[in-house]
Amino acid sequence: MTTTRPQPSVARQSTLRSTNLALVLRTVCAADTPPSRADVATRAGTTRATATRLVDDLVAGGLLDEGARPTPSGPGRPATPLLPSARTGALGLQVDAGLLAARVLDLRGRVVAEHVEERDLAGADPEPTLARLGALATEVVSGAGGVRLAGAGLALPGLVDAGSGVLLQAPNLGWSGVPAADLLATHLPGGLTPLPGNEADLAARTVAEAAPGRPGPLRDFLYLSGQIGIGGAAVLDGHVVGGSAGWAGEVGHVCVDPAGPACRCGSTGCLEQYAGRHALMVAAGLARDAPPAELAARVAAGDADAERAVTAAADALGVALAGVLNVLDLPTVVLGGQLGALTGLLRPRVEHLLGRRVLSARWRRMDVREASALPAAGATGAALRALDGVLADPARWID
Amino acid sequence: MTTTRPQPSVARQSTLRSTNLALVLRTVCAADTPPSRADVATRAGTTRATATRLVDDLVAGGLLDEGARPTPSGPGRPATPLLPSARTGALGLQVDAGLLAARVLDLRGRVVAEHVEERDLAGADPEPTLARLGALATEVVSGAGGVRLAGAGLALPGLVDAGSGVLLQAPNLGWSGVPAADLLATHLPGGLTPLPGNEADLAARTVAEAAPGRPGPLRDFLYLSGQIGIGGAAVLDGHVVGGSAGWAGEVGHVCVDPAGPACRCGSTGCLEQYAGRHALMVAAGLARDAPPAELAARVAAGDADAERAVTAAADALGVALAGVLNVLDLPTVVLGGQLGALTGLLRPRVEHLLGRRVLSARWRRMDVREASALPAAGATGAALRALDGVLADPARWID
Repeated sequence: MTTTRPQPSVARQSTLRSTNLALVLRTVCAADTPPSRADVATRAGTTRATATRLVDDLVAGGLLDEGARPTPSGPGRPATPLLPSARTGALGLQVDAGLLAARVLDLRGRVVAEHVEERDLAGADPEPTLARLGALATEVVSGAGGVRLAGAGLALPGLVDAGSGVLLQAPNLGWSGVPAADLLATHLPGGLTPLPGNEADLAARTVAEAAPGRPGPLRDFLYLSGQIGIGGAAVLDGHVVGGSAGWAGEVGHVCVDPAGPACRCGSTGCLEQYAGRHALMVAAGLARDAPPAELAARVAAGDADAERAVTAAADALGVALAGVLNVLDLPTVVLGGQLGALTGLLRPRVEHLLGRRVLSARWRRMDVREASALPAAGATGAALRALDGVLADPARWID
Repeated sequence: MTTTRPQPSVARQSTLRSTNLALVLRTVCAADTPPSRADVATRAGTTRATATRLVDDLVAGGLLDEGARPTPSGPGRPATPLLPSARTGALGLQVDAGLLAARVLDLRGRVVAEHVEERDLAGADPEPTLARLGALATEVVSGAGGVRLAGAGLALPGLVDAGSGVLLQAPNLGWSGVPAADLLATHLPGGLTPLPGNEADLAARTVAEAAPGRPGPLRDFLYLSGQIGIGGAAVLDGHVVGGSAGWAGEVGHVCVDPAGPACRCGSTGCLEQYAGRHALMVAAGLARDAPPAELAARVAAGDADAERAVTAAADALGVALAGVLNVLDLPTVVLGGQLGALTGLLRPRVEHLLGRRVLSARWRRMDVREASALPAAGATGAALRALDGVLADPARWID
């Protein structure tokens, strides 16, 4: 039994500075246009003097930058615009069955340096694979020049044990019980230890957040990461629903038809068996690793097998996603990964089925859209997550 | 686009008293055994003098009671135990296709007075139905003697519009677009206006909370409310997952087999069509409103139709719930309503299927259990929700 005790309400003196620094940093990060010190004071509800002192500390500490003052267009001196700093960032890493990726993101959410390497890693040995990723990361970090790295994150295509960080199972890599983050840490520069997480959960953050601490255009949606497997993440009010152990979002193993084909997971008729990359391509008469564009070309040419495979995938997505949306009450599905590239082909039929099968569709339109075509979105999400630590406690980084 | 601005961090002087009163009240409510003033000071992180002053105000305001001091068993005077007050409570109301219920719950979570009336309300006219519920409520409130009612809640078996409070659709009542809470308010004593909510969401609170503000034994689970329809609520860390519009939890409309029977909702093969009360009883060769005990007796007697119907319902539950648990990462399913009475019959097969179909079942046991047999759990949940307002801002009730 979990007993939650109320926390003391009185902020201790020693944490007050930290709380206020975080408030000011988040205020600047959340802004759509660079605010002035006066804007920050208003939005954070502090006095002008307090805001100025805190901003100055954050600028000196490399967490905020002062932008160029605009040319005066009237009386008075224009205020200095404030931005999240380009001098601090984080390293995002990703292992997938089809790629390795390393990417440095700064506090403004810009890619400073990256290396994405497409490789077939199904059944690959963990140790040399992670050594190779470490080498990519080392190269990327040295290419990121003077950016101070506040942390690192690692996106993994499977269930991660929150306590130990061990990758419990990644069926498409064929890995189970791999301490991936610890193995990788021995190959990373500067004593970085990456925080591991589920790829789909992390990729979903690239939709929920326009930049570190800045809300993206969608706040409530289901993100689908379609690779060989299909991962997912439900996002409510901008936050990924983690579930009781952080294992939520396994949409690929929602059953479409109990009498359907066997799945690697031990069950039958799982969504992956209809809309996963290998299943879809093979059903269309293509090589299992054929690119989405090849399937689209076949459909455009009127190939019957390709059309049937796309229809079956859309039907399966419609049934499985309707169940998820009925349970989670989300109006939007964002298709990412290789499934994203097929959005145009899948959308009409999937939206039709959601309209019919989702109870709340009578009161609002169900919307299926494509994620931005960013490759290795999990790596970006892993960097965003690593930057959470800076936004939550900037004092640690400037004192 | 939703833009969230950080809130000012500085508590204003006028709200400080309110915050501290809430902290102390929650501390007493959360305690497993009645704490003393000194215990409250320790747990709330305040000085003894502050805690004593706040406790005295809450006792005078009818939100805390002083229990009998135990007989001294050693040197010194034993401390006075503190309890949530029996002098303040809330009214919980419920309309379902099979019942009307009114119940007064006090701050200790005890039922002070109640009236549950079983009625077949499928297709009933809303106005006289709600007038009847109002009459029950009036009787129950007068039977609750001197308990001050801090609010009322209304559990409804369908989708409620959060803004207007209108019941959008309750298929098993045959109601749509009914302003049920407003209609009911005209029949309630003392100007009470009930806060409407979904029945399953509210019933789930009776599992998540042992008493107002006191955590129950389960914090992460899926609650299934099985009546004619099947509602549901996912609970994570003690809180019901509401979804983007408060419509989450429609487990009854998760598709079990797209080629299955038509559902009232316009879809096909929904879980309700296999495990809903009418579907299950009819499949077993019984009258559609037959009680669970009659089905259990038939199975015990080896009736083939009854066994087949139970197996089909368990198979459907296994497939649908596995999908939900894969997506939401919950280890436990609690069966409530009339489905709860069939837990013994359903559990072995449902647990077997969850073990096979839930990805994380390799690392932990999937657990199906019966909710307590409280009738009209939604009414209790509605009262618990109404008491949230007291726990959040006790100053409103004592000043």
